[in-house]
Amino acid sequence: MLPKHNAKHDIVAISASLMHLKGFNNTGIQEILQRANIPKGSFYHYFKNKEDLGLQVIDYYTEMITSLFKQYLQDTTVLPLERLDNLMTFYAQHFKKMKYKLGCPLGNFALEMGDLSEEFREKLYGSIDTLISIIESCLQEAKTEGQIADTIDTRKAAEFIFQSFEGALLYMKVSKSDRPLLVCKDAVKRYVQGK
Amino acid sequence: MLPKHNAKHDIVAISASLMHLKGFNNTGIQEILQRANIPKGSFYHYFKNKEDLGLQVIDYYTEMITSLFKQYLQDTTVLPLERLDNLMTFYAQHFKKMKYKLGCPLGNFALEMGDLSEEFREKLYGSIDTLISIIESCLQEAKTEGQIADTIDTRKAAEFIFQSFEGALLYMKVSKSDRPLLVCKDAVKRYVQGK
Repeated sequence: MLPKHNAKHDIVAISASLMHLKGFNNTGIQEILQRANIPKGSFYHYFKNKEDLGLQVIDYYTEMITSLFKQYLQDTTVLPLERLDNLMTFYAQHFKKMKYKLGCPLGNFALEMGDLSEEFREKLYGSIDTLISIIESCLQEAKTEGQIADTIDTRKAAEFIFQSFEGALLYMKVSKSDRPLLVCKDAVKRYVQGK
Repeated sequence: MLPKHNAKHDIVAISASLMHLKGFNNTGIQEILQRANIPKGSFYHYFKNKEDLGLQVIDYYTEMITSLFKQYLQDTTVLPLERLDNLMTFYAQHFKKMKYKLGCPLGNFALEMGDLSEEFREKLYGSIDTLISIIESCLQEAKTEGQIADTIDTRKAAEFIFQSFEGALLYMKVSKSDRPLLVCKDAVKRYVQGK
Protein backbone atom coordinates (compact mmCIF):
# COMPACT_ATOMS: atom_id res chain seq x y z
CA MET A 1 0.00 0.00 0.00
CA LEU A 2 1.43 3.38 -1.02
CA PRO A 3 1.49 6.18 1.58
CA LYS A 4 -1.58 8.30 1.02
CA HIS A 5 0.15 11.65 0.39
CA ASN A 6 1.87 10.55 -2.80
CA ALA A 7 -0.37 7.66 -3.83
CA LYS A 8 -2.05 9.59 -6.64
CA HIS A 9 1.23 10.81 -8.10
CA ASP A 10 2.68 7.30 -7.88
CA ILE A 11 -0.29 5.79 -9.72
CA VAL A 12 0.17 8.37 -12.47
CA ALA A 13 3.92 7.62 -12.67
CA ILE A 14 3.39 3.84 -12.75
CA SER A 15 0.66 4.20 -15.39
CA ALA A 16 2.83 6.59 -17.41
CA SER A 17 5.58 4.02 -17.58
CA LEU A 18 3.21 1.18 -18.54
CA MET A 19 1.35 3.26 -21.14
CA HIS A 20 4.59 4.52 -22.64
CA LEU A 21 5.64 0.97 -23.46
CA LYS A 22 2.29 -0.67 -24.17
CA GLY A 23 0.00 2.15 -25.23
CA PHE A 24 -3.11 3.47 -23.49
CA ASN A 25 -5.67 0.92 -24.65
CA ASN A 26 -3.32 -1.98 -24.11
CA THR A 27 -2.71 -1.08 -20.45
CA GLY A 28 -5.31 -2.53 -18.10
CA ILE A 29 -6.48 -0.98 -14.84
CA GLN A 30 -5.91 -4.37 -13.17
CA GLU A 31 -2.22 -4.25 -14.10
CA ILE A 32 -1.92 -0.71 -12.75
CA LEU A 33 -3.60 -1.73 -9.46
CA GLN A 34 -1.20 -4.63 -9.05
CA ARG A 35 1.90 -2.59 -9.83
CA ALA A 36 0.81 0.23 -7.51
CA ASN A 37 -0.38 -2.28 -4.92
CA ILE A 38 -3.67 -0.49 -4.30
CA PRO A 39 -7.27 -1.71 -4.19
CA LYS A 40 -9.72 -0.80 -6.95
CA GLY A 41 -11.63 1.53 -4.62
CA SER A 42 -8.56 3.72 -4.13
CA PHE A 43 -8.14 4.05 -7.87
CA TYR A 44 -11.65 5.42 -8.26
CA HIS A 45 -11.07 7.73 -5.32
CA TYR A 46 -8.33 9.47 -7.30
CA PHE A 47 -9.55 9.08 -10.89
CA LYS A 48 -12.96 9.22 -12.52
CA ASN A 49 -11.98 6.48 -14.96
CA LYS A 50 -9.09 5.23 -17.07
CA GLU A 51 -9.43 8.15 -19.51
CA ASP A 52 -9.11 10.63 -16.64
CA LEU A 53 -5.91 8.84 -15.60
CA GLY A 54 -4.66 8.90 -19.21
CA LEU A 55 -5.15 12.66 -19.41
CA GLN A 56 -3.13 13.08 -16.21
CA VAL A 57 -0.42 10.88 -17.71
CA ILE A 58 -0.23 13.33 -20.62
CA ASP A 59 0.17 16.22 -18.13
CA TYR A 60 2.88 14.25 -16.35
CA TYR A 61 4.89 13.74 -19.55
CA THR A 62 4.23 17.27 -20.82
CA GLU A 63 5.71 18.71 -17.64
CA MET A 64 8.75 16.42 -17.90
CA ILE A 65 9.45 17.18 -21.58
CA THR A 66 8.72 20.92 -21.25
CA SER A 67 11.27 21.12 -18.47
CA LEU A 68 13.85 19.26 -20.57
CA PHE A 69 13.19 21.48 -23.62
CA LYS A 70 13.61 24.60 -21.47
CA GLN A 71 16.79 23.28 -19.89
CA TYR A 72 18.40 22.97 -23.32
CA LEU A 73 16.69 25.58 -25.48
CA GLN A 74 16.83 28.38 -22.91
CA ASP A 75 20.46 27.71 -21.98
CA THR A 76 21.89 31.17 -22.61
CA THR A 77 25.48 29.99 -22.13
CA VAL A 78 25.47 28.72 -25.76
CA LEU A 79 24.18 30.16 -29.04
CA PRO A 80 20.57 29.24 -30.00
CA LEU A 81 21.37 26.77 -32.82
CA GLU A 82 23.87 24.98 -30.59
CA ARG A 83 21.11 24.61 -27.99
CA LEU A 84 18.93 22.84 -30.53
CA ASP A 85 21.89 20.68 -31.49
CA ASN A 86 22.57 19.89 -27.82
CA LEU A 87 18.94 18.87 -27.25
CA MET A 88 19.02 16.49 -30.19
CA THR A 89 22.40 15.10 -29.12
CA PHE A 90 20.98 14.53 -25.63
CA TYR A 91 18.05 12.58 -27.10
CA ALA A 92 20.31 10.50 -29.36
CA GLN A 93 22.46 9.52 -26.36
CA HIS A 94 19.45 8.96 -24.11
CA PHE A 95 17.74 6.60 -26.54
CA LYS A 96 21.00 4.78 -27.26
CA LYS A 97 21.14 3.95 -23.53
CA MET A 98 17.47 2.91 -23.70
CA LYS A 99 18.23 0.56 -26.63
CA TYR A 100 16.00 2.77 -28.82
CA LYS A 101 12.83 1.81 -26.97
CA LEU A 102 9.71 3.76 -26.03
CA GLY A 103 10.26 6.97 -28.03
CA CYS A 104 8.16 10.07 -27.32
CA PRO A 105 5.15 9.39 -25.08
CA LEU A 106 3.24 12.33 -26.56
CA GLY A 107 3.91 11.12 -30.11
CA ASN A 108 2.80 7.61 -29.20
CA PHE A 109 -0.40 8.92 -27.61
CA ALA A 110 -0.98 11.17 -30.62
CA LEU A 111 -1.00 8.30 -33.12
CA GLU A 112 -2.93 5.95 -30.84
CA MET A 113 -5.55 8.35 -29.50
CA GLY A 114 -5.75 11.22 -32.02
CA ASP A 115 -8.87 9.76 -33.63
CA LEU A 116 -10.28 7.88 -30.65
CA SER A 117 -10.76 10.55 -28.01
CA GLU A 118 -11.42 14.25 -28.52
CA GLU A 119 -10.28 14.98 -24.95
CA PHE A 120 -6.93 13.26 -25.55
CA ARG A 121 -6.53 15.02 -28.88
CA GLU A 122 -7.17 18.47 -27.41
CA LYS A 123 -4.82 17.94 -24.50
CA LEU A 124 -2.08 16.60 -26.79
CA TYR A 125 -2.57 19.56 -29.12
CA GLY A 126 -1.99 21.93 -26.20
CA SER A 127 1.08 20.00 -25.01
CA ILE A 128 2.65 19.94 -28.45
CA ASP A 129 1.89 23.65 -28.91
CA THR A 130 3.81 24.41 -25.72
CA LEU A 131 6.85 22.48 -27.00
CA ILE A 132 6.70 24.10 -30.45
CA SER A 133 6.57 27.56 -28.81
CA ILE A 134 9.79 26.81 -26.88
CA ILE A 135 11.51 25.79 -30.13
CA GLU A 136 10.15 28.93 -31.82
CA SER A 137 11.57 31.25 -29.14
CA CYS A 138 14.94 29.61 -29.61
CA LEU A 139 14.74 30.12 -33.38
CA GLN A 140 13.79 33.77 -32.88
CA GLU A 141 16.94 34.22 -30.83
CA ALA A 142 18.88 32.42 -33.57
CA LYS A 143 17.51 34.96 -36.04
CA THR A 144 18.53 37.87 -33.79
CA GLU A 145 22.01 36.36 -33.53
CA GLY A 146 22.16 36.02 -37.33
CA GLN A 147 22.42 32.22 -37.13
CA ILE A 148 19.47 31.63 -39.45
CA ALA A 149 18.16 33.43 -42.52
CA ASP A 150 16.00 36.52 -41.94
CA THR A 151 13.44 35.13 -44.37
CA ILE A 152 12.70 32.02 -42.33
CA ASP A 153 9.24 31.83 -40.68
CA THR A 154 10.23 30.79 -37.15
CA ARG A 155 6.79 29.39 -36.26
CA LYS A 156 6.64 27.14 -39.31
CA ALA A 157 10.28 26.16 -38.85
CA ALA A 158 9.58 25.24 -35.21
CA GLU A 159 6.60 23.13 -36.29
CA PHE A 160 8.70 21.42 -38.94
CA ILE A 161 11.52 20.69 -36.47
CA PHE A 162 9.05 19.24 -33.96
CA GLN A 163 7.35 17.11 -36.61
CA SER A 164 10.64 15.89 -38.02
CA PHE A 165 11.89 14.96 -34.61
CA GLU A 166 8.73 12.96 -33.89
CA GLY A 167 9.16 11.20 -37.23
CA ALA A 168 12.80 10.45 -36.38
CA LEU A 169 11.73 8.87 -33.09
CA LEU A 170 9.14 6.79 -34.95
CA TYR A 171 11.73 5.47 -37.39
CA MET A 172 14.17 4.92 -34.50
CA LYS A 173 11.70 2.55 -32.85
CA VAL A 174 11.67 0.42 -35.99
CA SER A 175 15.33 0.68 -37.01
CA LYS A 176 16.66 0.39 -33.43
CA SER A 177 19.44 2.81 -34.23
CA ASP A 178 20.34 6.44 -33.44
CA ARG A 179 20.75 7.11 -37.16
CA PRO A 180 17.26 8.66 -37.66
CA LEU A 181 17.96 11.15 -34.84
CA LEU A 182 21.40 12.04 -36.21
CA VAL A 183 20.04 12.34 -39.75
CA CYS A 184 17.33 14.65 -38.37
CA LYS A 185 19.87 16.75 -36.43
CA ASP A 186 22.04 17.35 -39.51
CA ALA A 187 19.10 17.93 -41.85
CA VAL A 188 17.48 20.44 -39.50
CA LYS A 189 20.76 22.37 -39.38
CA ARG A 190 20.94 22.38 -43.17
CA TYR A 191 17.28 23.43 -43.37
CA VAL A 192 17.50 26.43 -41.02
CA GLN A 193 20.87 27.57 -42.28
CA GLY A 194 19.93 27.13 -45.93
CA LYS A 195 23.11 25.29 -46.86
CA MET B 1 -20.48 -15.71 -45.36
CA LEU B 2 -17.80 -14.54 -47.77
CA PRO B 3 -17.16 -16.57 -50.95
CA LYS B 4 -14.23 -18.87 -50.25
CA HIS B 5 -11.96 -17.63 -53.03
CA ASN B 6 -11.53 -14.16 -51.64
CA ALA B 7 -12.37 -14.76 -47.99
CA LYS B 8 -8.79 -14.52 -46.79
CA HIS B 9 -8.13 -11.31 -48.66
CA ASP B 10 -11.37 -9.84 -47.36
CA ILE B 11 -10.49 -10.68 -43.76
CA VAL B 12 -7.13 -8.94 -44.25
CA ALA B 13 -8.82 -5.88 -45.77
CA ILE B 14 -11.45 -5.66 -43.01
CA SER B 15 -8.79 -6.10 -40.32
CA ALA B 16 -6.57 -3.52 -42.02
CA SER B 17 -9.33 -0.97 -41.85
CA LEU B 18 -10.14 -1.72 -38.19
CA MET B 19 -6.49 -1.77 -37.11
CA HIS B 20 -5.75 1.45 -38.96
CA LEU B 21 -8.32 3.28 -36.86
CA LYS B 22 -8.05 1.47 -33.53
CA GLY B 23 -4.55 -0.02 -33.49
CA PHE B 24 -3.50 -3.67 -33.49
CA ASN B 25 -3.93 -4.48 -29.80
CA ASN B 26 -7.21 -2.62 -29.55
CA THR B 27 -8.81 -4.62 -32.39
CA GLY B 28 -10.35 -7.89 -31.22
CA ILE B 29 -10.64 -11.08 -33.25
CA GLN B 30 -14.33 -11.21 -32.28
CA GLU B 31 -14.93 -7.84 -33.96
CA ILE B 32 -13.13 -9.02 -37.10
CA LEU B 33 -15.21 -12.23 -37.23
CA GLN B 34 -18.44 -10.25 -36.92
CA ARG B 35 -17.47 -7.70 -39.58
CA ALA B 36 -16.30 -10.42 -41.98
CA ASN B 37 -19.26 -12.60 -41.06
CA ILE B 38 -17.17 -15.75 -40.66
CA PRO B 39 -16.97 -18.37 -37.88
CA LYS B 40 -13.91 -18.60 -35.63
CA GLY B 41 -12.82 -21.87 -37.28
CA SER B 42 -12.47 -20.20 -40.68
CA PHE B 43 -10.24 -17.53 -39.16
CA TYR B 44 -7.82 -20.13 -37.85
CA HIS B 45 -7.96 -21.91 -41.19
CA TYR B 46 -6.43 -18.83 -42.80
CA PHE B 47 -4.27 -17.39 -39.99
CA LYS B 48 -2.12 -18.96 -37.30
CA ASN B 49 -3.13 -16.25 -34.84
CA LYS B 50 -3.84 -12.54 -34.58
CA GLU B 51 -0.15 -11.67 -34.98
CA ASP B 52 0.00 -13.63 -38.24
CA LEU B 53 -3.00 -11.61 -39.46
CA GLY B 54 -1.32 -8.36 -38.30
CA LEU B 55 1.79 -9.17 -40.34
CA GLN B 56 -0.37 -9.73 -43.42
CA VAL B 57 -2.09 -6.42 -42.76
CA ILE B 58 1.35 -4.77 -42.90
CA ASP B 59 1.99 -6.49 -46.28
CA TYR B 60 -1.40 -5.29 -47.49
CA TYR B 61 -0.64 -1.65 -46.62
CA THR B 62 2.95 -1.85 -47.84
CA GLU B 63 1.75 -2.97 -51.26
CA MET B 64 -0.82 -0.18 -51.39
CA ILE B 65 1.59 2.58 -50.33
CA THR B 66 4.46 1.28 -52.49
CA SER B 67 2.21 1.39 -55.50
CA LEU B 68 1.14 4.96 -54.69
CA PHE B 69 4.74 6.08 -54.14
CA LYS B 70 5.74 4.55 -57.49
CA GLN B 71 2.80 6.15 -59.27
CA TYR B 72 3.96 9.61 -58.18
CA LEU B 73 7.74 9.31 -57.76
CA GLN B 74 8.35 7.38 -60.98
CA ASP B 75 6.12 9.60 -63.09
CA THR B 76 8.61 10.58 -65.77
CA THR B 77 6.25 13.14 -67.32
CA VAL B 78 7.36 15.64 -64.62
CA LEU B 79 10.71 16.56 -63.08
CA PRO B 80 11.78 14.59 -59.97
CA LEU B 81 11.24 17.34 -57.36
CA GLU B 82 7.81 18.07 -58.80
CA ARG B 83 6.95 14.38 -58.34
CA LEU B 84 7.79 14.63 -54.65
CA ASP B 85 5.72 17.79 -54.45
CA ASN B 86 2.82 16.08 -56.25
CA LEU B 87 2.93 13.13 -53.84
CA MET B 88 2.76 15.41 -50.82
CA THR B 89 -0.01 17.47 -52.40
CA PHE B 90 -1.94 14.27 -53.05
CA TYR B 91 -1.61 13.27 -49.39
CA ALA B 92 -2.64 16.72 -48.15
CA GLN B 93 -5.79 16.58 -50.31
CA HIS B 94 -6.49 12.93 -49.42
CA PHE B 95 -6.34 13.56 -45.68
CA LYS B 96 -8.38 16.74 -45.99
CA LYS B 97 -11.15 14.58 -47.48
CA MET B 98 -10.63 12.08 -44.65
CA LYS B 99 -11.00 14.87 -42.06
CA TYR B 100 -7.35 14.27 -41.06
CA LYS B 101 -8.08 10.85 -39.63
CA LEU B 102 -6.10 7.61 -39.60
CA GLY B 103 -2.72 8.80 -40.91
CA CYS B 104 -0.10 6.32 -42.08
CA PRO B 105 -0.89 2.71 -41.11
CA LEU B 106 2.81 1.78 -41.15
CA GLY B 107 3.69 4.72 -38.89
CA ASN B 108 0.88 3.83 -36.50
CA PHE B 109 2.03 0.21 -36.35
CA ALA B 110 5.64 1.36 -35.89
CA LEU B 111 4.89 3.35 -32.76
CA GLU B 112 2.46 0.80 -31.36
CA MET B 113 4.38 -2.39 -32.08
CA GLY B 114 8.05 -1.36 -32.50
CA ASP B 115 8.90 -2.47 -28.96
CA LEU B 116 6.26 -5.15 -28.51
CA SER B 117 6.93 -7.61 -31.33
CA GLU B 118 10.24 -8.33 -33.03
CA GLU B 119 8.40 -9.83 -36.03
CA PHE B 120 6.32 -6.67 -36.51
CA ARG B 121 9.40 -4.50 -36.12
CA GLU B 122 11.38 -6.43 -38.73
CA LYS B 123 8.56 -6.43 -41.23
CA LEU B 124 7.93 -2.71 -40.74
CA TYR B 125 11.65 -2.02 -41.13
CA GLY B 126 11.59 -3.79 -44.50
CA SER B 127 8.45 -1.95 -45.63
CA ILE B 128 9.83 1.44 -44.68
CA ASP B 129 13.13 0.62 -46.37
CA THR B 130 11.25 -0.08 -49.61
CA LEU B 131 9.53 3.31 -49.43
CA ILE B 132 12.75 5.17 -48.59
CA SER B 133 14.45 3.52 -51.58
CA ILE B 134 11.75 4.81 -53.91
CA ILE B 135 12.24 8.34 -52.55
CA GLU B 136 16.01 7.93 -52.89
CA SER B 137 15.78 6.95 -56.58
CA CYS B 138 13.69 10.04 -57.22
CA LEU B 139 16.29 12.22 -55.45
CA GLN B 140 19.07 10.65 -57.51
CA GLU B 141 17.20 11.63 -60.65
CA ALA B 142 16.74 15.13 -59.19
CA LYS B 143 20.51 15.29 -58.73
CA THR B 144 21.09 14.20 -62.32
CA GLU B 145 18.64 16.88 -63.46
CA GLY B 146 20.51 19.47 -61.37
CA GLN B 147 17.43 20.10 -59.19
CA ILE B 148 19.27 19.45 -55.92
CA ALA B 149 22.81 20.14 -54.73
CA ASP B 150 25.54 17.69 -55.78
CA THR B 151 26.72 17.50 -52.19
CA ILE B 152 23.46 16.10 -50.83
CA ASP B 153 23.52 12.47 -49.62
CA THR B 154 20.40 11.13 -51.35
CA ARG B 155 19.98 8.17 -48.98
CA LYS B 156 20.07 10.33 -45.87
CA ALA B 157 17.86 12.92 -47.54
CA ALA B 158 15.34 10.20 -48.46
CA GLU B 159 15.33 8.95 -44.86
CA PHE B 160 14.86 12.49 -43.59
CA ILE B 161 11.98 13.14 -45.99
CA PHE B 162 10.28 9.89 -44.98
CA GLN B 163 10.73 10.61 -41.27
CA SER B 164 9.52 14.19 -41.61
CA PHE B 165 6.48 13.07 -43.50
CA GLU B 166 5.60 10.51 -40.82
CA GLY B 167 6.03 13.25 -38.21
CA ALA B 168 3.79 15.55 -40.22
CA LEU B 169 1.07 12.88 -40.32
CA LEU B 170 1.42 12.42 -36.57
CA TYR B 171 0.94 16.13 -35.91
CA MET B 172 -1.92 16.20 -38.43
CA LYS B 173 -3.83 13.62 -36.39
CA VAL B 174 -3.64 15.93 -33.37
CA SER B 175 -4.09 19.32 -35.07
CA LYS B 176 -6.77 18.08 -37.50
CA SER B 177 -5.41 20.32 -40.23
CA ASP B 178 -3.41 19.96 -43.45
CA ARG B 179 -0.96 22.57 -42.19
CA PRO B 180 1.65 20.01 -40.93
CA LEU B 181 1.72 18.37 -44.39
CA LEU B 182 2.02 21.70 -46.19
CA VAL B 183 4.70 22.91 -43.77
CA CYS B 184 6.55 19.64 -44.43
CA LYS B 185 6.21 20.01 -48.20
CA ASP B 186 7.69 23.53 -48.22
CA ALA B 187 10.43 22.71 -45.71
CA VAL B 188 11.52 19.62 -47.63
CA LYS B 189 11.84 21.74 -50.77
CA ARG B 190 13.94 24.29 -48.91
CA TYR B 191 16.04 21.50 -47.42
CA VAL B 192 16.89 19.72 -50.67
CA GLN B 193 17.36 22.91 -52.65
CA GLY B 194 19.42 24.57 -49.94
CA LYS B 195 17.52 27.84 -50.08
